[in-house]
Parts: sequence; structure tokens; C-alpha cells
Amino acid sequence: MENNNLLMIPGPTPVPEKVLLAQTKHPIGHRSPEFSEIIGEINDNLKWLHQTQNDVLTLTASGTGAMEAGIINFLSPSDRVIVGCNGKFAERWAELCEAFGLQTERVNAEWGEALDPETIREKLEADTNKEIKAVIVTHSETSTGVLNDLETINRHVKNHGEALIMVDAVTSLGSVNLPIDQWGLDVVASGSQKGYMIPPGLGFVTISEKAWGRYETAKLPKFYFDLGEYRKSAGKNSTPYTPPINLMFGLQTALQMMREEGLDNIFARHERNTQATREAMKALGLPLLAPDNAASRAVTAVAPTTVDAEKVRSVMKKQFDISLAGGQNQLKGKIFRIGHLGFVAERDVLTVVSSLEVTLRELGHENMTPGAGVAAANRVLAES
Amino acid sequence: MENNNLLMIPGPTPVPEKVLLAQTKHPIGHRSPEFSEIIGEINDNLKWLHQTQNDVLTLTASGTGAMEAGIINFLSPSDRVIVGCNGKFAERWAELCEAFGLQTERVNAEWGEALDPETIREKLEADTNKEIKAVIVTHSETSTGVLNDLETINRHVKNHGEALIMVDAVTSLGSVNLPIDQWGLDVVASGSQKGYMIPPGLGFVTISEKAWGRYETAKLPKFYFDLGEYRKSAGKNSTPYTPPINLMFGLQTALQMMREEGLDNIFARHERNTQATREAMKALGLPLLAPDNAASRAVTAVAPTTVDAEKVRSVMKKQFDISLAGGQNQLKGKIFRIGHLGFVAERDVLTVVSSLEVTLRELGHENMTPGAGVAAANRVLAES
Repeated sequence: MENNNLLMIPGPTPVPEKVLLAQTKHPIGHRSPEFSEIIGEINDNLKWLHQTQNDVLTLTASGTGAMEAGIINFLSPSDRVIVGCNGKFAERWAELCEAFGLQTERVNAEWGEALDPETIREKLEADTNKEIKAVIVTHSETSTGVLNDLETINRHVKNHGEALIMVDAVTSLGSVNLPIDQWGLDVVASGSQKGYMIPPGLGFVTISEKAWGRYETAKLPKFYFDLGEYRKSAGKNSTPYTPPINLMFGLQTALQMMREEGLDNIFARHERNTQATREAMKALGLPLLAPDNAASRAVTAVAPTTVDAEKVRSVMKKQFDISLAGGQNQLKGKIFRIGHLGFVAERDVLTVVSSLEVTLRELGHENMTPGAGVAAANRVLAES
Repeated sequence: MENNNLLMIPGPTPVPEKVLLAQTKHPIGHRSPEFSEIIGEINDNLKWLHQTQNDVLTLTASGTGAMEAGIINFLSPSDRVIVGCNGKFAERWAELCEAFGLQTERVNAEWGEALDPETIREKLEADTNKEIKAVIVTHSETSTGVLNDLETINRHVKNHGEALIMVDAVTSLGSVNLPIDQWGLDVVASGSQKGYMIPPGLGFVTISEKAWGRYETAKLPKFYFDLGEYRKSAGKNSTPYTPPINLMFGLQTALQMMREEGLDNIFARHERNTQATREAMKALGLPLLAPDNAASRAVTAVAPTTVDAEKVRSVMKKQFDISLAGGQNQLKGKIFRIGHLGFVAERDVLTVVSSLEVTLRELGHENMTPGAGVAAANRVLAES
């Protein structure tokens, strides 16, 4: 039978009905007092979500656009930057830096492993001339389900003193604690179709005072992504260019829902769903790509050895109308990824695990006790 | 009483109910076959709307982002460009060019007047070394309601041979005939909250083969707006970065509606609404900013002398919940602007004119016969 699609990919993520309905309102003028009021409320709630007193700037762009803005506003051609590379998105930021003529050094780790903060520390300590202007880290690497140790890496950057820390928080913001002001993060970028629980189309970036200092002398060319203009407008509850008004209506509602749930509860829910998913996979004899101590709270990557990852996705879609993500680049065909980011309830995780059990049985996965996955998830969810 | 807001500004423009409802569908994965099929349909219909065989590339960005992409992909630092400047948006493109280090020459006209194609011709003919790499023209200047003579200017650019013609068609596309392939326009950019009849959030740009040739050697840095990537993806009914899925659902529906109405009918409707608005203003003794022979079909700017433009807007909003736009920059407070772009029916024009008559009477506008504006609009609408 036809059913509603259950969207369990790491973005776009499920959207609450009341957010979808908020988007159906007729647009109003973006320079009207009514819309300024909405921008004001949104900006307050974005600061709350980001745990920061800095402005959170809203761009009409995907997360990639927000990262580009976060990088190019604070650097000049030939600046030396370090990019932690252990997945597709980290690799994208390195390519972006190269496209803008930055002296780009990759610190690599295997896809599926976390970055080693020590390697970054060594590079920073060796840089006695303070030539390194930025360290770019993907907090939750969506392509592998790895959570990098941002807190430790950031400590090394702080000890260096000159470099800015620039963070891709696209799938970490709203899924795991990210105390921006407490850690002193300089640039943090994210996208709407993730923890925000709204459709894609908006990018967000928040900037420290230290980074704004660099903005004054940064020489990479920019116009649409000139964040100084967004900052000026934010002070007047406005935007420099026309914002996606209907998405903003959705964002307003989603942020209200998030405040109602509370940050701690949101993080705890993501933690429970992550652990339930991971324990279920283990109980079903399915290897996890990322280790337990570096597990993204947004997405779990599974690397099955006895069944074909793409066949798992195909049966899950056809028989249950559950969308899982596949592998990207060198992981294509080797993994499937279960998104549990944003508007995902415990019930959804149980649905995925129980449907996956049927799928695995149909595909001839051996050494599996039907119900074992659900039982493992049960233990996590009942205890926590 | 409370009423539905009647949005008569030149963007965001009114959105049909079925487009708003299309946006409420739950997002699906942007890499799914279902979404590829939607992209394929949209891309076909965009080509139809643009009267071109070239790809029309869809960006998650406002119209300004689309213009930036259209400019920076085909030029190198210090390239000489001519920008026709007779309004706020044209001025924005000149500033954008300067921000990217282009040798930027403005060809000015008074705000409210059309560009003089002769001045541009002279500059192009004097450039025997073929140093001018682009001529940038705002077709319909939203800030003044002026339609520039793109066809003539383009003919001069074609005679030059080297320069690309780059067009801001943000409020002309879908309101007035713009035969891109027939005229051989190189870069044409537009935005979703205009003739497209959908909310803001999408930018569009279409590129000629000649411009793609320049792309190969153009050296301005780019990543998010690297149109080569969008072109590659369009060939696979995909996008390089996550598109605003729900806006795309709306776009799909809006383009279906436009095809059903037909291009000629759409242009004729805009023509009727423009003439009805203009004749009504004249009959009410309200001076028009733009001359008849250079009238935007998207927006009519009115420069009242006996009443305060901002008071007109204020009464229209409070008493009738009709939103009109104000003046920008040096025209602030001096004009009000009536949008008649996109999903605007003859009925809406009559509503605005008749409400404006009440407003004018309340504000003490003299030399006015109540009903004269509606009668003038009547003559246009009944005859055409």
C-alpha cells in the first residue's frame, strides 16, 4: 500500500506539520513592520539555539553557502588555512579554500575515523610565525557519521592565538551540545534542513568579535555573502536582500517548538535515538562505520558485510517507504546511513529498526535473531 | 475589519493558493529519483519561460545572488565593464562589480528616465581594442518603474562583438517579452518572488554558449556560485547543493499554471494591467515617474505633488490592507509604487485604483473627480 514517506536521511529531515502549515501563509512585504517583528523574534531564538550573544546571520543559501560566507569574509588571498579532512563535506571546504586561492593544508583521517587533535596541535605549535589564519573543522561529518572532537581541537587553536576556528555545524547544531560562547568559537555555520526541522533554503552563520576584527582587513572579494551587510541589517531586524519569507514563517514556528522542548531535552533525545540506533545495529550484527567515542548524534553510518547496502535501502524504500541515505564518493555502495536528526522521535527509530529486521531477513542476512535489534533499542530507550 | 493583505508591491508578489499548498508537502530526499523527475519538469518549463534552449540554472539565493553568479563566472579581475545606471538595482550591480575588482564604468541616466542606448553605443564604438568585457543592464528597474530599451542596447553590444550582455531581468521576466535566444542575450538573471508567482528563495540564471566560452578562462574566484557545477548537475536533473525542496514544489506548480495561461496571454495581461494603472493615475492627476515609452510592466511609480506619498501608503494599508511599496534611496518619501507583477488580475488593479481614490480624497488631494481613475482603467480593460 501507499504510505507516508518516512524520511530518515541526514537532511532534509522530517518537518513538523505545524511548520509545514506555517509556510502556507501568504507572503508579506519583507520591509514591513510585521516582518521586522518576525525577524526580531527569530534572531532572539537563534541566539538561544546557538548559545551565543553574537548575532546569528541568516542567509538565503544552502549550508554550503553559509560555510563559504563564514570563510571568505575573514581571510585574504594566500592566507594559510588548515582543514581537517575526514569526509565528503570536510573535503568540500578544502576545495572551497583552494578555489579562493588560500594556502590550504589538509589534516587527514580515514573516512569513518575522527580527526586526531594531536596532529592539528603539532601543526599549530610549529607555526611560531603565526601564519595560520584559520582552522576549519567539520563538527559532525554527515558523510561518515563521525563527530570530531571540536572541543579539544578548539583548545589548541585558542593556544595558537592567531588562527580563527571555523566550524561546519550543519548536522551538529541542535543535535549535540555546542556552547559557542563558552568555547569561544569564531565562525559556526549551519543549514535549515537539519536540526532546525524546516525545509532547506536557509543558511546560518554566527561570528565572534575576534572574527569581526579580521573582517576589517580581509581581502577576498564578496558581495552577496558580505556578512558586514547582514550584520548591519540584523541590527535593524532586517536583511540586505529579500529573504525567503515563507521559510522564515516556518523557522519562526520551528524555533518556538525548540524553545518549548528545551535545549537539554533536545540533546538528550538525540543521544537516546543515537544510542538506540547504534545498539540495535550491533545486536543485528551490522558493523558501524564510526566508533562509539566519535558517533554523530545526527546520523549513523552502517557498513554491512553480508548484505548489499544499496539493496537494504531499496527494500526499505519499496516495502516500507522509509528513505535511508546511501554512501557518498568512496563509500558509495558500501554503507547506508540512518538519519536521526531534528524532528525524529523514539517511535521513528523503533520503526526503522523493526523494518530493517524484516529487510535483513529477506536479503538473507545471517546470524541474526529477529527482534534482537528492537530489544537492544528497547534497553536504551527504557533505561534513559 | 481585518482583511486579507493585498500585496501590490513589486516583490514579493501575490502567490496563488495552489502554489502555497504545493509547498506544504513533506520534503523528500533531494537525491531521490522522485525529486530528479520534478527537477527535469521544472527545467523544461524554465526553458519555455525564458524562450531559450540554454540551460536555466536554479540557485538557492535571492535575485542578487543570481546576478552575482551571472557576473563573476565570466569575468576576471580588472576586466572593464559598463553598467547602465538609472536606479537602485543598477547601482547595486555597479557596486558588486567594484567589490570584485572590475574596472567599472557607469553610464548614468536620471532615476525615472531610461538609459540612452546612444551613450552606450558611443562607448562601445570607441573601444576599438575590445577591452570592454561586459555590458550590464537592468531591464526593468524596480526602484523607478522604468523599462530600459534592452533590445537596442543589445544590438550595440552585438556589434561590438567582444562584450557579453548581462541582464537583470528580475522584474521583467514573465512580465514583458524577453526572447533570450532570438536576441542572443548572454546572461539573464531573475528571482522567484517576481513573475514566477512563488515566494522568495530561488534565483535563476541562463547562460549563452558564448558566455560559457568565457567561463573557461574567467578568473574571479567562486565556489557556491560556480555555475559550471550547476550546469553539470542540471544535465543530470540534479543540483550541486541541497535545493529548497518545498519552494521547488511551489515552482513546479507555478510553472504549470504559467504554461496553461500561455506566454502571450501573460504578457498581454501585464500590458493591460500596466496601462490601466497608468491611465488611472493620470486621470486622478497623479504624475508618473517613468514616461509612457519606458514603462515597466511590473511596477508603476507614482510621484504625487499634492499629497504625501508615505501617507498614501499608510492609509492604503490601514484602511484597506493594501500594501504599496515606497521610494528607495533618493526617492524615499517622494514616490509610491504599485506592483502589478505575477499573479495580479485585472480585478486587483481595479481594487487598488478605487481604494486609492478614497485615500486621495481623505488626504485632501485636489482636482480629482471620484470615479475618474476607475473610469480610465475601465476604458483600458474594456477595450483590450
